[in-house]
Amino acid sequence: MRPSGRQPEQTREIQLIRDYTRHAEGSVLVAFGDTQVLCNASVEAGVPRWLRGKGQGWVTAEYGMLPRATHTRGAREAARGKQGGRTLEIQRLIGRALRASVNLRKLGEFTITVDCDVIQADGGTRTASITGGCVALVDAIRHLQREKLIKGDPFKQLVSSVSVGVYKGTPVVDLDYPEDSAADTDMNVVMTEGGGLIEVQGTAEAAAFSRAELDTMLDLAEGAGAELFARQREALGIRA
Amino acid sequence: MRPSGRQPEQTREIQLIRDYTRHAEGSVLVAFGDTQVLCNASVEAGVPRWLRGKGQGWVTAEYGMLPRATHTRGAREAARGKQGGRTLEIQRLIGRALRASVNLRKLGEFTITVDCDVIQADGGTRTASITGGCVALVDAIRHLQREKLIKGDPFKQLVSSVSVGVYKGTPVVDLDYPEDSAADTDMNVVMTEGGGLIEVQGTAEAAAFSRAELDTMLDLAEGAGAELFARQREALGIRA
Amino acid sequence: MRPSGRQPEQTREIQLIRDYTRHAEGSVLVAFGDTQVLCNASVEAGVPRWLRGKGQGWVTAEYGMLPRATHTRGAREAARGKQGGRTLEIQRLIGRALRASVNLRKLGEFTITVDCDVIQADGGTRTASITGGCVALVDAIRHLQREKLIKGDPFKQLVSSVSVGVYKGTPVVDLDYPEDSAADTDMNVVMTEGGGLIEVQGTAEAAAFSRAELDTMLDLAEGAGAELFARQREALGIRA
Amino acid sequence: MRPSGRQPEQTREIQLIRDYTRHAEGSVLVAFGDTQVLCNASVEAGVPRWLRGKGQGWVTAEYGMLPRATHTRGAREAARGKQGGRTLEIQRLIGRALRASVNLRKLGEFTITVDCDVIQADGGTRTASITGGCVALVDAIRHLQREKLIKGDPFKQLVSSVSVGVYKGTPVVDLDYPEDSAADTDMNVVMTEGGGLIEVQGTAEAAAFSRAELDTMLDLAEGAGAELFARQREALGIRA
Amino acid sequence: MRPSGRQPEQTREIQLIRDYTRHAEGSVLVAFGDTQVLCNASVEAGVPRWLRGKGQGWVTAEYGMLPRATHTRGAREAARGKQGGRTLEIQRLIGRALRASVNLRKLGEFTITVDCDVIQADGGTRTASITGGCVALVDAIRHLQREKLIKGDPFKQLVSSVSVGVYKGTPVVDLDYPEDSAADTDMNVVMTEGGGLIEVQGTAEAAAFSRAELDTMLDLAEGAGAELFARQREALGIRA
Amino acid sequence: MRPSGRQPEQTREIQLIRDYTRHAEGSVLVAFGDTQVLCNASVEAGVPRWLRGKGQGWVTAEYGMLPRATHTRGAREAARGKQGGRTLEIQRLIGRALRASVNLRKLGEFTITVDCDVIQADGGTRTASITGGCVALVDAIRHLQREKLIKGDPFKQLVSSVSVGVYKGTPVVDLDYPEDSAADTDMNVVMTEGGGLIEVQGTAEAAAFSRAELDTMLDLAEGAGAELFARQREALGIRA
Repeated sequence: MRPSGRQPEQTREIQLIRDYTRHAEGSVLVAFGDTQVLCNASVEAGVPRWLRGKGQGWVTAEYGMLPRATHTRGAREAARGKQGGRTLEIQRLIGRALRASVNLRKLGEFTITVDCDVIQADGGTRTASITGGCVALVDAIRHLQREKLIKGDPFKQLVSSVSVGVYKGTPVVDLDYPEDSAADTDMNVVMTEGGGLIEVQGTAEAAAFSRAELDTMLDLAEGAGAELFARQREALGIRA
Repeated sequence: MRPSGRQPEQTREIQLIRDYTRHAEGSVLVAFGDTQVLCNASVEAGVPRWLRGKGQGWVTAEYGMLPRATHTRGAREAARGKQGGRTLEIQRLIGRALRASVNLRKLGEFTITVDCDVIQADGGTRTASITGGCVALVDAIRHLQREKLIKGDPFKQLVSSVSVGVYKGTPVVDLDYPEDSAADTDMNVVMTEGGGLIEVQGTAEAAAFSRAELDTMLDLAEGAGAELFARQREALGIRA
Repeated sequence: MRPSGRQPEQTREIQLIRDYTRHAEGSVLVAFGDTQVLCNASVEAGVPRWLRGKGQGWVTAEYGMLPRATHTRGAREAARGKQGGRTLEIQRLIGRALRASVNLRKLGEFTITVDCDVIQADGGTRTASITGGCVALVDAIRHLQREKLIKGDPFKQLVSSVSVGVYKGTPVVDLDYPEDSAADTDMNVVMTEGGGLIEVQGTAEAAAFSRAELDTMLDLAEGAGAELFARQREALGIRA
Repeated sequence: MRPSGRQPEQTREIQLIRDYTRHAEGSVLVAFGDTQVLCNASVEAGVPRWLRGKGQGWVTAEYGMLPRATHTRGAREAARGKQGGRTLEIQRLIGRALRASVNLRKLGEFTITVDCDVIQADGGTRTASITGGCVALVDAIRHLQREKLIKGDPFKQLVSSVSVGVYKGTPVVDLDYPEDSAADTDMNVVMTEGGGLIEVQGTAEAAAFSRAELDTMLDLAEGAGAELFARQREALGIRA
Repeated sequence: MRPSGRQPEQTREIQLIRDYTRHAEGSVLVAFGDTQVLCNASVEAGVPRWLRGKGQGWVTAEYGMLPRATHTRGAREAARGKQGGRTLEIQRLIGRALRASVNLRKLGEFTITVDCDVIQADGGTRTASITGGCVALVDAIRHLQREKLIKGDPFKQLVSSVSVGVYKGTPVVDLDYPEDSAADTDMNVVMTEGGGLIEVQGTAEAAAFSRAELDTMLDLAEGAGAELFARQREALGIRA
Repeated sequence: MRPSGRQPEQTREIQLIRDYTRHAEGSVLVAFGDTQVLCNASVEAGVPRWLRGKGQGWVTAEYGMLPRATHTRGAREAARGKQGGRTLEIQRLIGRALRASVNLRKLGEFTITVDCDVIQADGGTRTASITGGCVALVDAIRHLQREKLIKGDPFKQLVSSVSVGVYKGTPVVDLDYPEDSAADTDMNVVMTEGGGLIEVQGTAEAAAFSRAELDTMLDLAEGAGAELFARQREALGIRA
C-alpha cells in the first residue's frame, strides 16, 4: 500500500500553469502533487563562446531549491558560495533532456535558459522540472517565432519525465518523498512522445535490482508518459 | 501623473497570503502589486556561535531573487559563487528590521531565519520582504508557542516597510519599477505601529534632496504604514 | 556626558592630509579623532563594460579595514576569500556619495577608484572615508586637468559626511566607538555644501526613534557639516 | 566496424595492478586499454559529522583528471577554484557504486576514501574507476582486518562497471574515446557478480533509443561483466 | 651608478616607529626609504588546532598590499576572492623568519599574528616587513610579560632582512623599485645578529649567477645587517 | 648515518621516462628514488593577455599532489576550492626555473605549460619536478620544431635541481622524507649545466646556518648536478 493510497501505476495530480510570472518568455508552474517547480525560460541573443560562429543555438538549464522548499531548511547555495553536486547533476540532466526537444540548428544563434526553481519539494523535483521546463521552452520558441526573430520551427518533440522505483517490494510510479526516501531502487526516465528513451538513470539504494524489475519499471514509466504528454499538449493547446 | 495612474499617496494592492507553502513554520506570499516575494520563516534550535550561552535567541534573514524575476535574466548567485553587495545589503536590512519585532530574550535559544525569495520583481522588493516577513515571523513564533517550546510571548510589535521617492518632482509612495528607475530620490522606511522609525534609508539618485522633501516623504510613508499594518493585522487575525 | 567629554554638537578633531602617499593621483589621510583612513584616488583610462560607449566616466569606491585597525584582530578578508556584507554595504555607500561630487559626462571615459583603507578605527570610518575620499577625488580630477586629459571641469560640489545618534537619551554628533557601540540610534548623513542631503541612513539599534529625534539629529549633522566643509576647503585651498 | 577493430562484445585489455603506490592502504592502477586511472583507497578513523554515533562506517570517492590526461589540456580544477559538474557527478556515482560492495555497519567508525585520478583518458574513465576502485577498496578492508582494527568482514560483493553504447547503429561494449564521442547512445552500467544491477545510466546523445536497444546494451554489459569480475578476482587472488 | 645615487653597500634610510597605531600589542611603521609597511603584532590566546595540547605557542604572519601602494593600482585581493601566489609566498617567508626570533615553548599557548600591510611600495617590501615585524613581535612579547600572562622570556634573537642583487653588473644592497625591476639577480637574505643565516632566496632574473656573485651579495647583506640590527636595537632601547 | 644508508654526496636513483603518457607534447615520469612526478608539457597557441603582441612566447608550470601521494591523505585542493600557499610557491619556482631553459623570443607566440603532478612523494618533489619538467619541455620544443610551427631553436640550456640540507649535523644531498622532516636546514638549488645558479632557496628549520655550511651545501648540489645533467642528456639522447 502506498502512503498516499495511490495505485502503483497512478501518478500524482499533474498541473501545468502557463504564464505564471510575467517577465519570462516562457513561465510555467508545474505541480506533481505537492512538488511545485517554477520553470522560467529566458531567451537571450548569442550563444556560449564555444558555439560561436557554428550557426546554431543552445538550450541549457539551471536548477535551484528555495532553502525552505524541504522539511528542514537547507543552506542557501548562494550563501555557501557554490552549487552542490546534486544541484549540478540535476541541472545537467534537465539541460540534456530539454535539448532533445529542439533542433539547435533551426534555433539560430539564440540561447534559451530554463531556470527550474523548486518552490515546494515532495519528491520528483527533477522529473517535474523536465516536464514543466519543456512547456516553458515551447513558449519561448513560440515567442521567437511571434517576434519573427527566427524562421522555421526549431521545436522537434515533447519530452517528459517521471520517476519509478521499487517501494517495499512493489514497483511504483511517480514517487513522493515518503516513498522516495524508503525505496530500494529509484529510477528517473526521460521519454519522447513516440516511445523513445532520452535518459534512464536507475540507482539501487539498498539491494541490487534485476533485469525483470528494470523492465517493470520502464513499463510503468511508459504508462505515466501517456498521462504527462496529454497534460503538456493540453496546456499548450496541441492536439495529440 | 504616475505611470500606474495611482495618486501620490496611494500604495499598490497589498496581499498577504499565509500558509503559502507547507513545510515552513511561517510561510507568506506577499504582493505589492506585481512584486511578489515568498517569505518563509524557519525555526531551528540553537543560536549562532557568538550568542551561545547568553540566554537569548536570534532572528535573521536571507534574500534572493529568482534569476528571471526581473525584465532581463540575472545571473544566478549560486552559480556565480557569491551573493552580490545589493543582496547582502538588503538581507542585512531585513534582518535588522525583523529583530525590532521580537524580544530576543523571550525567544530562548532558537533561531528564526526568514528567507525572502523574490518570485517576480516590480520595485519595492525589500519593503515587501519586510512587510511579509514580519507576518511569517509571527507565525513562526506562534508555532513555538503552540508546540510549547517556549513560555511567554517574544512578539513585541508589528513592523512594516514602504518606499517613498521623488518622481518627476512629486513625492510619491510605494514606487513600482518604472518609477523607481526614474526617481530623483529613493527612500525606504521601516516603521512600527506606534509611529516609531526603525530604519530610514534615503538616497539622492540625481540631485540632492532637501529637509522639506524628506519631511513630505516621511509623511507619505506614515500614511502608507496605516494601510500596511491593517493588512498585516487582517492577515493574522489581530484586532487593531 | 559623552565619554570623551565633548559637547553633543562637537565633532572630534578633523584632519585632512593631502599627498600622503606618492603614487596615487589623489592621496589623503583623513582623521576624525582616532579614526584614521587612507583615501587613495586612482585614475584609470576606460570605464566598466556596461558604461562603454556612453560618453561618460565612472567613480567608484572600495573599502577595507586593516586586520588590527580594531580592538581585537579581525580576519583578513583576502584570506577569508570574500568581502563581508558590512564592507560591501559601506563601499557602495561611499561610491554613491562620491558620485554626487562629479559630473560623470564631463569626466569622459575615465574611471576614478577611491580606495578607503582604515588604518585605525574608533567609530565613524564610513563618514571619514567619504569626507576624506572627496578631497582625494578632487585631487584626482585636478590631475586629469593638469595633464590635459580632459577639458572642462567635472567637479560639481564638495560632499561630506558625519554620524549622529542618540547616546543615553541625548542626540550627539560624530560618535566615537564607545558611543557608537552603546547608542540607541545611529545615523549617517551625507551632505552637500548647499545644505542638500545625499544619503540619510538611520537605524534604531534598541528602541524606535521618533520624527522629532530624527529632526534633532539632522540639525546636528548640518551643524557639523559646516565644520567639515571648512576643513575640506582649507585642505584644498578653496575659498568658501 | 569499430575504430579499434574490436568485436562489438569485446572489451579492451583490462589490467589491474595492485600496490601501485606505497602509502595508500589500497592502491590499484586500472587500465581499460589506454584509459589509465590510479585508484588509491585511504583509511581514516572516524566518519562524517552526520554519521557520528550511528555505529557505522562510510565509503566515499573523489575523482580527478590530470590536466593533460586528455587530447587537449583541460584547466586544473584546483586552479579554477572548484570541481566541475561532470567531476562531481562522476565521483558521486563512484561512491554510490562502491558502497554496494560494503556492509557499512560491519566497517565500524572508519571512513574509506577512494581517490580515482585519471592519468590518461581514452573513454570510460568512470567505469574503469569503479572497477579498479573496488579492488583498492578490498585491499583497504583487508588492511583493517590485518591490523585488527575491525572484527568481522565488511566486504559484501565485488562491483564492476562498463560502458555500452550504440555506435554507428551497432550496440558495442567498452567504448573508447573515438567511439564515445560519436555514439548515438551512451550507457554506463554498474553490476554485481550475481547479475544484479547497481546503476544504469543511459543517455541519448543524438536520437532517442528504444527498449530493444536498451536490452541489447544490457546484454553486452552483462557479458563484459564476466570478464571484469574474472580480472578482479584474479588480481585479488579470489577463486570464482 | 645607482638611480638613487647610493653607494653599492649603502642602504636606504631605515626608520622604525613604534606604537604607530593604538590597538595592536605591537605596532611598528617601518620605512626602507619610500617603502612603508605597517607591522601590527596581535596576541591571541590559543593556538591553531594542529598545535593544541603540545604546550607551545605559535607565531605567524599575514601580508597585504594596499591597492594603490604601487605605481598602478592593483586589484584588491579581498575583492578578487583570493590571495595571490606572491602574497602567500611572502607571508610564509615572513612567518618562518619571525619564528626564528622566538622560543615557541616559552611562549605558551598564545598565538602572535604579525600583519604586514604595505602602505607604499618602492621595492623590498618583504625585507622591510621582516625587519619591522620583528620589532612589533618583541613589543607583543613584552606585552605578554608585562601583563604577566607568561613567565620566562620567549624572545631568542633579533632577525632582520635585506635584499641584494646584481644591477647592471654591480652587486648592490637594498634595491629600490627601479633597481629591482631591472636587476639580473635578486636575493633576499634573512639574518640573525650573530651572523647566522635564516633564509637565503636568490633568483636569476636574466642570466644565471655564479658562486662568486653569490658570495659578494652575501657580504653586502651581512654589512647591511649591522645597520639594520642597530636600528632595531635603537628602536627597542636594547644595548648592543 | 643517513636512514637510507646513502653517502652524504649520493643522490637517490634518478629515472627519467619519456613518452610516459600519449597525449602531451612532452611527457616524462621522473623518479628521485620513491618520489615520482609526472611532468606533462602542453603546447598551446597564444600567450597570456599581458604578453600579447610582444612577439614572444611563455613557459609556465602548475604543480599538484595526488591526495594520497603522502603518508596520510591530504585534502584535494580542487575540493577545498583553492590551491594552498605551498602549492603556489612551488609552481612559481618551477616556472621560473624552466624559463631559464628557453629563449622566449625564439619560442614565438606559443605557451608551454608544464604540469607536474606528484604520484608518490618521498621528499624533493619540487626538485624532481624541475629536473623532469625540463626534459618534458625539451620534447615540447622539439614537437614545435618537428611540426614546423617555429623556426630556429628556442632551447637555451638544460636546467636541473636538487635539494641539500644539514641532517643531524652533516650536510647531505637529495634528502628523502625522513631526512627532510628532521633536517636543520633545507635548501633547494636550481642549476645550469655551465655551473650557473638559477635559484638558491635555503631555509633554517631549527638553528641558523653559517656561510661555511652554505658553501658546503652548494658544493654538494654542484656535485649532484653532474649526475642530474647526465641523466637528462641520456634520456634526451644529447651528447655531453
